[in-house]
Amino acid sequence: MMAARIARFGSSSLRPLTRATSVLGPKVFTGKKQVHTSPATCFPKCELTSKRYPVERGPFSQITPDDIKFFTELLSPHRIITEASELEGHNTDWLGMVRGASSVLLKPKTTEEVSAILSYCNQHKLAVCPQGGNTGLVGGSVPVFDEVIISTALMNQVESVDSWSGVVVCQSGCVLEALDQHVAEHGLMVPLDLGAKGSCHIGGNVSTNAGGLRLLRYGSLHGSVLGVEAVLASGEVIDCLSTMKKDNTGYDLKHLFIGSEGTLGIVTKLAINCPPRPQAVNLAFLGLQSFDDVLQTFRDAKSKLGEILSSCEFIDRSSLECVEENLKLKSPIEPHPYYMLIETSGSNGDHDEEKLNTFLEYVMSSGQVTDGTVATEPSRILHIWSLRERIAESLIADGYTYKSVVVYDISIPLPHFYKMVEDMREHLGSSIIRCCGYGHIGDGNLHLNITSKEYEKEILNRIEPTIFEWTAKVKGSISAEHGLGFKKRNYIHFSKSDGAVGLMKQMKKLMDPNGILNPYKVLPDDN
Amino acid sequence: MMAARIARFGSSSLRPLTRATSVLGPKVFTGKKQVHTSPATCFPKCELTSKRYPVERGPFSQITPDDIKFFTELLSPHRIITEASELEGHNTDWLGMVRGASSVLLKPKTTEEVSAILSYCNQHKLAVCPQGGNTGLVGGSVPVFDEVIISTALMNQVESVDSWSGVVVCQSGCVLEALDQHVAEHGLMVPLDLGAKGSCHIGGNVSTNAGGLRLLRYGSLHGSVLGVEAVLASGEVIDCLSTMKKDNTGYDLKHLFIGSEGTLGIVTKLAINCPPRPQAVNLAFLGLQSFDDVLQTFRDAKSKLGEILSSCEFIDRSSLECVEENLKLKSPIEPHPYYMLIETSGSNGDHDEEKLNTFLEYVMSSGQVTDGTVATEPSRILHIWSLRERIAESLIADGYTYKSVVVYDISIPLPHFYKMVEDMREHLGSSIIRCCGYGHIGDGNLHLNITSKEYEKEILNRIEPTIFEWTAKVKGSISAEHGLGFKKRNYIHFSKSDGAVGLMKQMKKLMDPNGILNPYKVLPDDN
Repeated sequence: MMAARIARFGSSSLRPLTRATSVLGPKVFTGKKQVHTSPATCFPKCELTSKRYPVERGPFSQITPDDIKFFTELLSPHRIITEASELEGHNTDWLGMVRGASSVLLKPKTTEEVSAILSYCNQHKLAVCPQGGNTGLVGGSVPVFDEVIISTALMNQVESVDSWSGVVVCQSGCVLEALDQHVAEHGLMVPLDLGAKGSCHIGGNVSTNAGGLRLLRYGSLHGSVLGVEAVLASGEVIDCLSTMKKDNTGYDLKHLFIGSEGTLGIVTKLAINCPPRPQAVNLAFLGLQSFDDVLQTFRDAKSKLGEILSSCEFIDRSSLECVEENLKLKSPIEPHPYYMLIETSGSNGDHDEEKLNTFLEYVMSSGQVTDGTVATEPSRILHIWSLRERIAESLIADGYTYKSVVVYDISIPLPHFYKMVEDMREHLGSSIIRCCGYGHIGDGNLHLNITSKEYEKEILNRIEPTIFEWTAKVKGSISAEHGLGFKKRNYIHFSKSDGAVGLMKQMKKLMDPNGILNPYKVLPDDN
Repeated sequence: MMAARIARFGSSSLRPLTRATSVLGPKVFTGKKQVHTSPATCFPKCELTSKRYPVERGPFSQITPDDIKFFTELLSPHRIITEASELEGHNTDWLGMVRGASSVLLKPKTTEEVSAILSYCNQHKLAVCPQGGNTGLVGGSVPVFDEVIISTALMNQVESVDSWSGVVVCQSGCVLEALDQHVAEHGLMVPLDLGAKGSCHIGGNVSTNAGGLRLLRYGSLHGSVLGVEAVLASGEVIDCLSTMKKDNTGYDLKHLFIGSEGTLGIVTKLAINCPPRPQAVNLAFLGLQSFDDVLQTFRDAKSKLGEILSSCEFIDRSSLECVEENLKLKSPIEPHPYYMLIETSGSNGDHDEEKLNTFLEYVMSSGQVTDGTVATEPSRILHIWSLRERIAESLIADGYTYKSVVVYDISIPLPHFYKMVEDMREHLGSSIIRCCGYGHIGDGNLHLNITSKEYEKEILNRIEPTIFEWTAKVKGSISAEHGLGFKKRNYIHFSKSDGAVGLMKQMKKLMDPNGILNPYKVLPDDN
């Protein structure tokens, strides 16, 4: 193992970099993992969703002893949870902002069991809420009322890894990080990485079309996922579990299940195309004086790093201060108004180092970047990534995070990217603690966060719908990667036309006529 | 401009390679372009589809003078074609195997015109056939009976190219090659390249989810296409024309139109994520003695070329002989049982050259590759690519190509890839001229072709359904990239389950209740 090393550079000096020895991706103990393990200890018990939000229970049946008897016979007593204390973590979301009142959680192990459960629920008009790692931020993964929770926790088998093609087939309950470690033994990587990797399930990632840190390089799950097996509301199993990279035989139904947040079917298995694991990883942490410099540096990174650019992230001063103050993490460089993380991943460490040096020399000599550091050693890479990955966690310590009410996870055309943070900061004035922005600038994806000491309805009303109107005006997306879930469903019109929403509703009706699958999510209320 | 140069190497020598100066992609004058321009001169007039195949006309209206009057007023006289001689090329497919009898072709310029046409046709129960460059190989792009042809030929405007994000927005009738040249001015490339690029339309590529030569590197159109605007059978315009790389706001409807071959809607505009155009391109043409060597060389290419590998193609001896004999193209190396084309594209020519040299030294010293040549100069790259890209054209000169009846374009797990060609060759014995295989081995996509002097029903019966049963047995796909169209629709069950096909039919019924959109295509006959 190579000794820990950070090459520090100022505006006039640049030390040669050593080749990285790490495999991709730091192993950060994320806030999400922490909270997921024991949510009740982290947050005061939050108000029931049915009380906090204006939402009416659908015309579903209520669970009866006969239903419990059926489920107990189908599974076995230890795979059906009815204890209130055990259910609490599954009724409440990670941010502690929405809370359902389900009285039963089921843990199927097989597709056949999921099919039997759904068939029964559909016949008896019992609503269900599919749940993976429960790391979602829009209230999509917890019940709103008393929906039966169907957990994928025990559906965690890897069926096959084809080292010729790089295709892995697995059940939907595999934890992302564990799956990545599994395919690493075959020299592969899962083409998806995000802060919640330690607890999120790959089936949840697929169902929410999770984006994450390296979409810039590896593309979206609509491209990486080759096949999906899903169970419809009726219990019918739809087998689209192709492992072929090319398969044009009829409508590509798997896309219906990617990103529809469990409202059209429950994903039980999937096939993912895994790229070769890179041999070399480098991570640069840069300080910049203006947002124009940030944009120009991104453009230069694309041009000079080309095919080895694997991540391009942005942090503003306020976000970094929050992570420093609230989590006591230390920035490796002096304070700057803006920061960037630029990661390279490649097959030849010497080549990557040379490309990165050329890039860094260029952006420093041009004055775009005024300070920075490069990490090639795994523990240093991990530390720098934690400055970016733990911002969400650090914001919670500020008090009530408005982001917890509706997550401000938006896509914005790059020229407008930071203007939104500035405009919102000016708009809100001194009523708040913090208005900060960070995110995946390489994909145009901004995470905008506003914190205040405690919940104030008035502040929320000043934020919304202004923030969505602003986004719609520049033709951005009001939910870049987190989905709509429960909390954002009624804002869909800011990003989708009436015609598109109408067609979505028709598809929902076609595939789930009784509306039992994850109700009150994704699609807007009828009115 | 660098002088033409090919570094030739034998088993014991390897000359240093020069950096490529080309932009990506040879500009080949393809057979498809040739044929499209004047199909009647290349093929004898083929039998009407309605006579050759067992197919019944649907319950659609027949075109009347009133209909012609409506269309003439909507467009203008020169954008409505009713002359039989002008229609012939649009009624007949490229291979000259299917021929419809449409009496009218419309050339809208705008989405609004497409909408007005479809709204009228839907009300009057007139079936339509959307047509792009008419380069399809499964009879999907020509009418079966008298469907109104809606051509995208005049919908060829590029609306915008965003050089920050690399996203281009254009109409669906842009010719692929022209679009690629357009974005090249912004340092970008269309992440799709295929033999028919000189005449195929990008809307047709999207509607058929075209794969092509570089899917290995840039992924499928489900990943690259960010937004689609499409017109439903009713005339309603569905605007999903997002230009954001991340947009999780409801069901991702654009995927319904990608690969559904115009049966769910007509694509009018699209937004594509274009990667930076590579600075350096190298192409190696290799000769190998066994198929095991081919597989191992592919594996080594992935590992040693990593992120710069942009194409990995396979040609067997019989395919190369065909292109040499029938088109008088010259192979740059001595005859071998198997050949591979391996292309690299990257941002740094010196690095790419070094990686390629390391790879070539390895595969030659191991004995996997026994001869080869590397091209870095554009005209040499173009010549070598033509050996691969013009195989389809060369096969036609053999006589009747069975591939013309049903295109054998299949995905096969790599360990079984060439076994299918060998088994089929043995199965057919001496009744044929040629049974050969080539294709995109990097994606597991085999093009298997069987030629005989003339059409013989008996030979066809020996091929089908054996070839599809064989494919289904190894869990391949009976149509990797060409789609199902008219010719393969009734074979869908070899690759898709009854449940999946049932759901496809329900979706068709939902989105096109009168079934006017490209009837007799994609979905199997009811029986």
